Amino acid sequence: MSNHPDSVVRAHVEAHRSDFLDDLGEWLRIPSVSADPDRAGDVRRSAEWLAAALTATGFPVAEVWESDGLPAVFAEWPSGEPGAPTVLIYGHHDVQPAAVEDGWDTDPFEPAVRDGRMYARGAADDKGQVFFHTLGVRAHLAATGRTAPAVNLKLLIEGEEESGSPNFSALLRAHADRLACDAVIVSDTGMWAEDTPTVCTGMRGLTDCQIDLYGPGRDIHSGSFGGAVPNPATEAARLAAALHDDDRRVTVPGFYDGVVELTDRERELFAELPFDEAAWLRTAHSTAALGESGFTTLERVWARPTAEVNGIHGGYGGPGGKTIVPASAQLKLSFRLVAGQDAEKVQQAVRDWVAARLPAGIRHEIRFHGATRPCLTPLDHPALQSVVRAMGRAFGQEIRFTREGGSGPAADLQDVLGVPVLFLGISVPSDGWHSANEKVELDLLLKGAETAAHLWDDLARNWHPGAE
Amino acid sequence: MSNHPDSVVRAHVEAHRSDFLDDLGEWLRIPSVSADPDRAGDVRRSAEWLAAALTATGFPVAEVWESDGLPAVFAEWPSGEPGAPTVLIYGHHDVQPAAVEDGWDTDPFEPAVRDGRMYARGAADDKGQVFFHTLGVRAHLAATGRTAPAVNLKLLIEGEEESGSPNFSALLRAHADRLACDAVIVSDTGMWAEDTPTVCTGMRGLTDCQIDLYGPGRDIHSGSFGGAVPNPATEAARLAAALHDDDRRVTVPGFYDGVVELTDRERELFAELPFDEAAWLRTAHSTAALGESGFTTLERVWARPTAEVNGIHGGYGGPGGKTIVPASAQLKLSFRLVAGQDAEKVQQAVRDWVAARLPAGIRHEIRFHGATRPCLTPLDHPALQSVVRAMGRAFGQEIRFTREGGSGPAADLQDVLGVPVLFLGISVPSDGWHSANEKVELDLLLKGAETAAHLWDDLARNWHPGAE
Ligand SMILES: [Zn+2]
Ligand SMILES: [Zn+2]
Repeated sequence: MSNHPDSVVRAHVEAHRSDFLDDLGEWLRIPSVSADPDRAGDVRRSAEWLAAALTATGFPVAEVWESDGLPAVFAEWPSGEPGAPTVLIYGHHDVQPAAVEDGWDTDPFEPAVRDGRMYARGAADDKGQVFFHTLGVRAHLAATGRTAPAVNLKLLIEGEEESGSPNFSALLRAHADRLACDAVIVSDTGMWAEDTPTVCTGMRGLTDCQIDLYGPGRDIHSGSFGGAVPNPATEAARLAAALHDDDRRVTVPGFYDGVVELTDRERELFAELPFDEAAWLRTAHSTAALGESGFTTLERVWARPTAEVNGIHGGYGGPGGKTIVPASAQLKLSFRLVAGQDAEKVQQAVRDWVAARLPAGIRHEIRFHGATRPCLTPLDHPALQSVVRAMGRAFGQEIRFTREGGSGPAADLQDVLGVPVLFLGISVPSDGWHSANEKVELDLLLKGAETAAHLWDDLARNWHPGAE
Repeated sequence: MSNHPDSVVRAHVEAHRSDFLDDLGEWLRIPSVSADPDRAGDVRRSAEWLAAALTATGFPVAEVWESDGLPAVFAEWPSGEPGAPTVLIYGHHDVQPAAVEDGWDTDPFEPAVRDGRMYARGAADDKGQVFFHTLGVRAHLAATGRTAPAVNLKLLIEGEEESGSPNFSALLRAHADRLACDAVIVSDTGMWAEDTPTVCTGMRGLTDCQIDLYGPGRDIHSGSFGGAVPNPATEAARLAAALHDDDRRVTVPGFYDGVVELTDRERELFAELPFDEAAWLRTAHSTAALGESGFTTLERVWARPTAEVNGIHGGYGGPGGKTIVPASAQLKLSFRLVAGQDAEKVQQAVRDWVAARLPAGIRHEIRFHGATRPCLTPLDHPALQSVVRAMGRAFGQEIRFTREGGSGPAADLQDVLGVPVLFLGISVPSDGWHSANEKVELDLLLKGAETAAHLWDDLARNWHPGAE
């Protein structure tokens, strides 16, 4: 056996594969469904199980943290090296609901290994991806001969992610001192495909609102009054329609202010991904693509800000017809944001735009439900380069780049802790997050452990955040 | 007492006022609520009561006509004069539901006379306005010394008008022979105001449709797919918004084809009406007027075709937000039509317009719920001139012109019988149709009887439909 660190890491991982999968299986048996109040005890048991596993891994600190909701787990393993970077790993130990009746071939809380895959709720989202870090850090120690990791390692594994992380931001703020770090590594995302390892470089932000429009004091007869008074359903439609021009660009003045545009290099890299639009459309349950002119589908979902009508409701919706001018209408809009956009400025721009477009006789209320900021790591960021190199060593392949179109608690980490967020995920689209027969590819899971093992060493050698 | 016919008519009406009101009160005590299946027996009793009253008035033929729903009443009194015009009076003997709990000061089915008004459900809509014809024809005979009316008089008083006249068109077709006439006089409308007697010269038509739009096969995540696939809620909004240009003119190509424009004289006459826009807005429960540029509010509701969004529904409508691209959306549109428009052509124009505007990836279905044609009598029509003269004699005032913005069974009469429809109504906006404390002004009711008395004589003298 070679003494090259890559070989040592691989050998360590292979040697502990069986124990690692047994342990993961034990954790997956705990049905930590955060959405089900009857499972609150299981979520707590899952947190306690993980804290014990992290202690067993060697973390000198491993604690269950209470929140106003379900508990999170915090662990810490100082490097002992002066000036070493501090990295916080983020993941979650709660899972989506699951029941055999939903179409599972086997019990979702009785892990089953078939064809190199482990089937269980949480196998990929997110217990598997949290747990590979325990194997990763042990492999890192084995390969470097260290007794503590080369970077200061922290973990924060929350218990309410699948319930919308309602207490996460407060938890971060309450413990900001102990969570202080130079970067966050989020292990709750995926790669492009089994044969195309990728690193995600950012997520879009989000802000959404409800607009209530009020016209006549009650539904009135369209024969007597229609065509002579403003109709709030028409005005809701006119707002929703006016959001986009014929090029499907968002028309709200100032909406694109500050947008960090894709670089030519990023567009090239996206274009090199083996994207099958027909297959993508099938996952979208759609028969045609449509979006902002001048951008590809991937660019649209990953790197462009959008305005979406999530709901529009006004007037009669029952069988047949009813000749009324309705009294009110409601519009639910969401805006995906990209790096450089300021959520508060976008909200104000939308407020101003709505107010300026409504005719006399239509009263309105607009309420934003908060905002999640976008995050984006430039391709040349040294910590991102470390992730790419570590992954390349584990996979033995060129690592490509993706982004996430969605929005998540990663942005809270970035905001509260004030540090860049990086992504290390090995799940693939076929893993079936939130669906029946969720699974994780065991080979990829172990490559995740290898990547982590390489990453701590690479970061310690090549990244000096204090010196930047 | 003068022997001038106007004086004889007035004297006859005054002399029989008390008996007339007693009889009307008896009819109003029958709760002929067509919408309430438990009242079907009362609707039948109302029909039988009316047929008996018409027989007592002198009509040699008075029959209860069965339909697939609730019964109508038909009566006939031939003139005996060769070449006399034949007139069919239309009204209805069913009423809206009513209960003391809805805010009535007295029992809605126990008529109460206070301050020169009779309060009861159906007092104005429509029993009072049907019943003044019994007094009117007797006054006509008294004033002319005739034993039969100067015109061939027919009455058709339906029993399901307040339930949308579902069987009326079939009834007309089944009895078209016996209903044959030269004009229909509809007594189921109103006047401008107590001090401003008016004749209605037309009603708008109506056609309405439901448009279902289908996008993704299910609701999909707006983070993963939003901005890159077509959104049916957005497309529904874009359709609804595109219905009108910034001048609030309907944009559907061909929509205005054939529209009979208002003459300068009609616009002058409308403008002379004492219209109080602030008061009108209060009845519309609206705080501002809005409609097609270049037309007044009255012109918009009486004489202009419109497109109205009666309902728009798609996507999420619950509390908070939900970041989806919805699978479907629904639009309910209605179009008011004016004379000269062809409902079938309008429907086809809307179908073509919708199909041409939707992007790939949005499937749609459009379904029209039928059509009611517009009707309009030119100001110089000799029968309309007779109505105006007769009303002028009864009221001793200049008679002005209005139209109805709504749509009704009048159009069926026009279509099936192929004759012009005229309107003779004495109800006023304060009568509270379909509301609590419906009433009729007794002085106006008697002027309605006087008008009818003058009308039959005037028509026989001045209108020769066969010779036109
Ligand atoms: Zn997750
Ligand atoms: Zn009526």
